[in-house]
Amino acid sequence: MDKEAIRRELENVHNEIRSFIHETPVLKSKLINEIAGCSVYFKCENFQKMGAFKMRGALNAILKLSIEERKKGVVTHSSGNMAQAVALAAKSLEVPAYIVMPENAPKVKKNAVRDYGGQIFESGNNIFDREALANKIIDAKACSFVHPSNDINVIFGQATAAKELLHSQPDLDFVLTPVGGGGLLAGTALAVDSFGNECQCFAGEPSQVDDASRSLKSGKIEFNDSTNTIADGLRTNLGDVNFPIIQRLVKDIITVEESEIIDAMKLIWERLKIVIEPSSAVPFAAVLQQKDKFKGARVGIILSGGNVDLSKLPF
Amino acid sequence: MDKEAIRRELENVHNEIRSFIHETPVLKSKLINEIAGCSVYFKCENFQKMGAFKMRGALNAILKLSIEERKKGVVTHSSGNMAQAVALAAKSLEVPAYIVMPENAPKVKKNAVRDYGGQIFESGNNIFDREALANKIIDAKACSFVHPSNDINVIFGQATAAKELLHSQPDLDFVLTPVGGGGLLAGTALAVDSFGNECQCFAGEPSQVDDASRSLKSGKIEFNDSTNTIADGLRTNLGDVNFPIIQRLVKDIITVEESEIIDAMKLIWERLKIVIEPSSAVPFAAVLQQKDKFKGARVGIILSGGNVDLSKLPF
Repeated sequence: MDKEAIRRELENVHNEIRSFIHETPVLKSKLINEIAGCSVYFKCENFQKMGAFKMRGALNAILKLSIEERKKGVVTHSSGNMAQAVALAAKSLEVPAYIVMPENAPKVKKNAVRDYGGQIFESGNNIFDREALANKIIDAKACSFVHPSNDINVIFGQATAAKELLHSQPDLDFVLTPVGGGGLLAGTALAVDSFGNECQCFAGEPSQVDDASRSLKSGKIEFNDSTNTIADGLRTNLGDVNFPIIQRLVKDIITVEESEIIDAMKLIWERLKIVIEPSSAVPFAAVLQQKDKFKGARVGIILSGGNVDLSKLPF
Repeated sequence: MDKEAIRRELENVHNEIRSFIHETPVLKSKLINEIAGCSVYFKCENFQKMGAFKMRGALNAILKLSIEERKKGVVTHSSGNMAQAVALAAKSLEVPAYIVMPENAPKVKKNAVRDYGGQIFESGNNIFDREALANKIIDAKACSFVHPSNDINVIFGQATAAKELLHSQPDLDFVLTPVGGGGLLAGTALAVDSFGNECQCFAGEPSQVDDASRSLKSGKIEFNDSTNTIADGLRTNLGDVNFPIIQRLVKDIITVEESEIIDAMKLIWERLKIVIEPSSAVPFAAVLQQKDKFKGARVGIILSGGNVDLSKLPF
């Protein structure tokens, strides 16, 4: 797709999903700006339906299916936000949803999926078990698979968060997101390229799972040996659909330490009075780390979600 | 004052303070409504400047002073939100602020007062020490005392939160606040009487410090033997200015247990994705306790503030 076609498609996607999502608020804080040395605009996807941006992509992926395909239903495998997103998006569109979740997924997340009308299939706890069970369901029900991040329709859906942000703040110099599977980052990069005004797209990534940063340097998709980070939404790796977009449009990926993530998260909770999940704090941690780079600039940050276990806070 | 005069004064006060405060958002949640069995509208004073409704009353109290009085400055004593509110309100109006704080007040609160330009005087840790030092400062500087809750101008200022809530949701059946010193409750009762449409004003109060509930029953101001509640903003007692208003206009005060406060607070954090202090959760705990009373109704709740020590959470 050329740039004009991408821009048109982003407009179309946004129009299609608009009635099923919240236009989330953009918050700022004088004190945070003083600490950061720049003007920060936080796009609050923690206030999105089901508590994360993933609702946007799930909706678009299902809306792109034919009537026949929708009747047969959708399947995804996830222990986290995508399980809830696909369940709620499918419910909104009256489509059956089959959600593969590992046996050891938190009960609260399973309950949320069930509350949204998703039918849960319990798999073993590793990714191969999950994929195998999802494939079995696809064979049995002839339903459609929705990938959490490596699907162009999911990517276009996630892009609408940055599109809304740039609509309310057209003169941003930078937009940052966290990067895990790469769907939000690729979508945001497309939106920044389409709707930004000399705006650059960056990402923040935990040093402990710096596969995306290494991928950008090596030119091929890298993987993580361990996934030991508090930012539990960012433990996955990039895919062949989103990586080329990220290579083309993302300026840099800044890696941050665990303590920087926790400090950034605490600052947002204390000053903005909002609940965000650790993954959401990663791009803000990157801004606080690289003060010279962002000095005096207008910086947009996508706060990806607010689904956090309050009994397991790091402070 | 008759009802019409009160209504006019509330309009005047709101116009005077409007440019110094945020019009805070009103949030709701489908899931919370399902759990509560009624439609709940949360007025988010945790997003107010300095993180609490107290900013409203402090501004109005200072605005009512003469130019001469303002030059001499204002004094208050508080270990909590009122210290920050008076400091920031005074700064906004370019008035000197002398804040008496107990030696053992949290460092973070002292720093916040100092950041807002308030001059701190450290007193002993009991209320008599604080009052004595405040009186000394008043004698020395001929400045004006701002009481956190038992001052008619403070009460009218606090009323503007409920006024805004009723402006955005005119058909509320109930408005609830927490009750500690009684300033927010008395102000809210005035606003509900002036701007509500057959709307009743209730309060929630911790069972552990149920002085206001007992005062309403006995017809005189009661006190607490102990102040052992997590709702640290509600440990004070009513005063002779606010109590008559509360007697006349507040329908009932519902007392709630500590566990009910914590559960209500957790539900708000998890579902609304916002940070509120324990005192703010008290009226919502009352609604969850008395489901029959509020069944199917439209219920407004003033979330009083969001200044909470994240290292001391109850969950």
